[in-house]
Amino acid sequence: MAGIPSSDRLRSALAEFVAIPSVSLDPARAGAMRDAAEWLVAQLAFANGRIVESDGHPVVLGERIVSEGALTVLVYGHYDVQPPGDETAWETPPFEPSIRDGRLYGRGATDDKGPVVIALEAARESTEVNVRFLFEGEEEIGSPSLPRFLDEHRDELAADLVVSADGAMWRASEPSIAIAAKGLLGLDVTVDGPASDLHSGRHGGAVLNPNHALAAIVASLHDADGRVAVAGFYDDVAEVSAGDREALGRIEFDEEAYRRETGVPALHGDPGYSTLERLWTRPTLEVNELRGGGAFTVIPGRATAHITCRLVPNQDPDRVFGAIASHVANVAPEAVRVALKQQPGAVPAYAIASDHPAVVAGLDALRSAYTDREPLLVRIGGTLPAAVLFDRHLGLKTLLFSFSTADENLHAPNEFFRLQRLDEGVTAWRNLLRRLGDGLRPPGPMSRIEA
Amino acid sequence: MAGIPSSDRLRSALAEFVAIPSVSLDPARAGAMRDAAEWLVAQLAFANGRIVESDGHPVVLGERIVSEGALTVLVYGHYDVQPPGDETAWETPPFEPSIRDGRLYGRGATDDKGPVVIALEAARESTEVNVRFLFEGEEEIGSPSLPRFLDEHRDELAADLVVSADGAMWRASEPSIAIAAKGLLGLDVTVDGPASDLHSGRHGGAVLNPNHALAAIVASLHDADGRVAVAGFYDDVAEVSAGDREALGRIEFDEEAYRRETGVPALHGDPGYSTLERLWTRPTLEVNELRGGGAFTVIPGRATAHITCRLVPNQDPDRVFGAIASHVANVAPEAVRVALKQQPGAVPAYAIASDHPAVVAGLDALRSAYTDREPLLVRIGGTLPAAVLFDRHLGLKTLLFSFSTADENLHAPNEFFRLQRLDEGVTAWRNLLRRLGDGLRPPGPMSRIEA
Repeated sequence: MAGIPSSDRLRSALAEFVAIPSVSLDPARAGAMRDAAEWLVAQLAFANGRIVESDGHPVVLGERIVSEGALTVLVYGHYDVQPPGDETAWETPPFEPSIRDGRLYGRGATDDKGPVVIALEAARESTEVNVRFLFEGEEEIGSPSLPRFLDEHRDELAADLVVSADGAMWRASEPSIAIAAKGLLGLDVTVDGPASDLHSGRHGGAVLNPNHALAAIVASLHDADGRVAVAGFYDDVAEVSAGDREALGRIEFDEEAYRRETGVPALHGDPGYSTLERLWTRPTLEVNELRGGGAFTVIPGRATAHITCRLVPNQDPDRVFGAIASHVANVAPEAVRVALKQQPGAVPAYAIASDHPAVVAGLDALRSAYTDREPLLVRIGGTLPAAVLFDRHLGLKTLLFSFSTADENLHAPNEFFRLQRLDEGVTAWRNLLRRLGDGLRPPGPMSRIEA
Repeated sequence: MAGIPSSDRLRSALAEFVAIPSVSLDPARAGAMRDAAEWLVAQLAFANGRIVESDGHPVVLGERIVSEGALTVLVYGHYDVQPPGDETAWETPPFEPSIRDGRLYGRGATDDKGPVVIALEAARESTEVNVRFLFEGEEEIGSPSLPRFLDEHRDELAADLVVSADGAMWRASEPSIAIAAKGLLGLDVTVDGPASDLHSGRHGGAVLNPNHALAAIVASLHDADGRVAVAGFYDDVAEVSAGDREALGRIEFDEEAYRRETGVPALHGDPGYSTLERLWTRPTLEVNELRGGGAFTVIPGRATAHITCRLVPNQDPDRVFGAIASHVANVAPEAVRVALKQQPGAVPAYAIASDHPAVVAGLDALRSAYTDREPLLVRIGGTLPAAVLFDRHLGLKTLLFSFSTADENLHAPNEFFRLQRLDEGVTAWRNLLRRLGDGLRPPGPMSRIEA
């Protein structure tokens, strides 16, 4: 590859990677999944890249150990992508990478094949730290095989710190590192009334309509100001420290611009908090789906709601579920049967201290790539199960060091990746690995440094 | 047809009629619709039967005038049927009439081809009254062409009274005449929040979720006892007379059996009324559909509810809509946009006095066919647009004289008609026409007699 400018090489690599339709959700794409894993193995020729089977899609591992005494970084990413959805909504086909206006369009370009290409390029030439690699193929389906895989491959994954290529910068105007991601609790409410749908003319007024009962239950979950009205919901919430809240207050955030962007007539939420505080630091309960009956004259036999809560540090998903279950039991009318079911795969919040040495190193590395803008510490309203799993199964903290941007149509049509991020990202990753190698040689793993 | 017992002849006629797949909703069945109309024309050879075009499906008219001075009855029915729905749910194909256990199974057997066959047979030999016929082909799609058709054919439809073959007896254990049917008002509530679906992790807690707003609005429409909580909703309700209420109280109705039949844990409704009073005499507001979002992590841009109200006499659909619109405007939060839209085709309630001469004659006629059981006066929670239209456009009251029974799977798979009803119905219809001819010769139209 001598003679080819690195940015051209990186673009070609990304285009190759995006052209592989590695949709983990689609059984018909099993061949493409393996192709994507093998593409990674080829990229990891410098690091003993190999496919290791899991209970589900294959995992790609690799490592380059430069010195027994050096710090070891586990680089995490995923090679699977979301389904393309409605292909007619794409300006160019999702698996035919197309470059327009300095952006590479294609499914997976930013989530997270672009960031993975950056990490591979930076690690290839790193000599300051030992680097291990873990690329999974199930991130977009909830990483079901990852917990057991981590337990069964602890030795191959031994490290001091995880650096994740996955995640996303908050906005394009300045670089950022996310130091917290909310947890997730999903649950379903089912209200059963009549044994089958009834004619609403023949039976209206004599039985409780499950739609009415469900609406009353859902309406009871929030007060008029938007605060969650479930007793105990906020009990374990770790309030943001005064310092963090002050840092948060310094972040430029235009509420009116946000209102326009979302298209709502007015913003609405937990009183006493700014919009940014609501988004980043407060737990939420959102009814994602209401469904009952149809646009014809029935009293439906059943009405359902799907709910997800986003949790903040210290909240235990099971305990929050218990609080909601008690609340619903208290308000459920006797003329219907109400059932609540927790969905599998609840995840607590993830957080890394804003003064964790890896975060400090990450900020310095960003400054080296973006000399004109001060990087931000931000939080993610979404959930990062992998970071929680690394903490729980390997005892490792994760630094989210992604060069994706949240506006790049993740999970939507016309997903894209800003190509300038390739060089910026490689610069920053190289600096990060250097700083980690320089300044943070063990006595012990970084997770212990923090503790 | 001499020598064929009439019951055999009627069964054959019904089987022929049911075998014609006259589904008015299905454009592919236009040929069958015309076949059914022509089948009726052939049956009406004795009465100058003919097809008259309307704005939609053809109408079949006919008349046999026995005497200028005799009372004239307009016989109403419809030849169209509901779509068969899921054909795999049928034990025998919907348009292959099958007789089992004294019942003829097939789509339209009871709604209302069986009752039409009865009316035709009885009218064929009637000499006491003038009889006109109007069979429409759009009853199952809301009779959209009927109002204009009535206006444009007033002369051909001149009569003193409508007797409808459509409708249904309340239950199989005793004969009944329905003297009231509720009106219908349909409306849609649309709650718009974000301009498009938002990720509930990224945006949760900062905007008002339209599902939450819709639930609050829907929950506000009833109090905990099931009474409609919309100011003005009950303003014009004509309370049932003491006599009618007493008559209603004498009707045997097993609430526990009804609870078991519907499958609800407990009955629920407007306090101070029995279940039968709730079903027959009280207006209702039922949310037929709730819909918003999906079983994934979104804050939907829109949530909707479809609502139908069943109205009782004196309630004006437009005025009731206005009351609901005011209520919703009062409770709608400012952080979403709420729109309410009345559906076309609202229908007020229909009622005929329990002592109307046609009702009295109808009861007598039922006693002649069912000597062991006293007929009941009942009410219908559903809506009878045709009866309202006859009242409004022709100034005629309608006697509902159907031999269908409400348990015969109307609009459902395995629709059937009890064959014994053929002979019972013909006997009763003959007696009805005789009594109307005997006792109710004009001074004036029966609608005026009542007034």
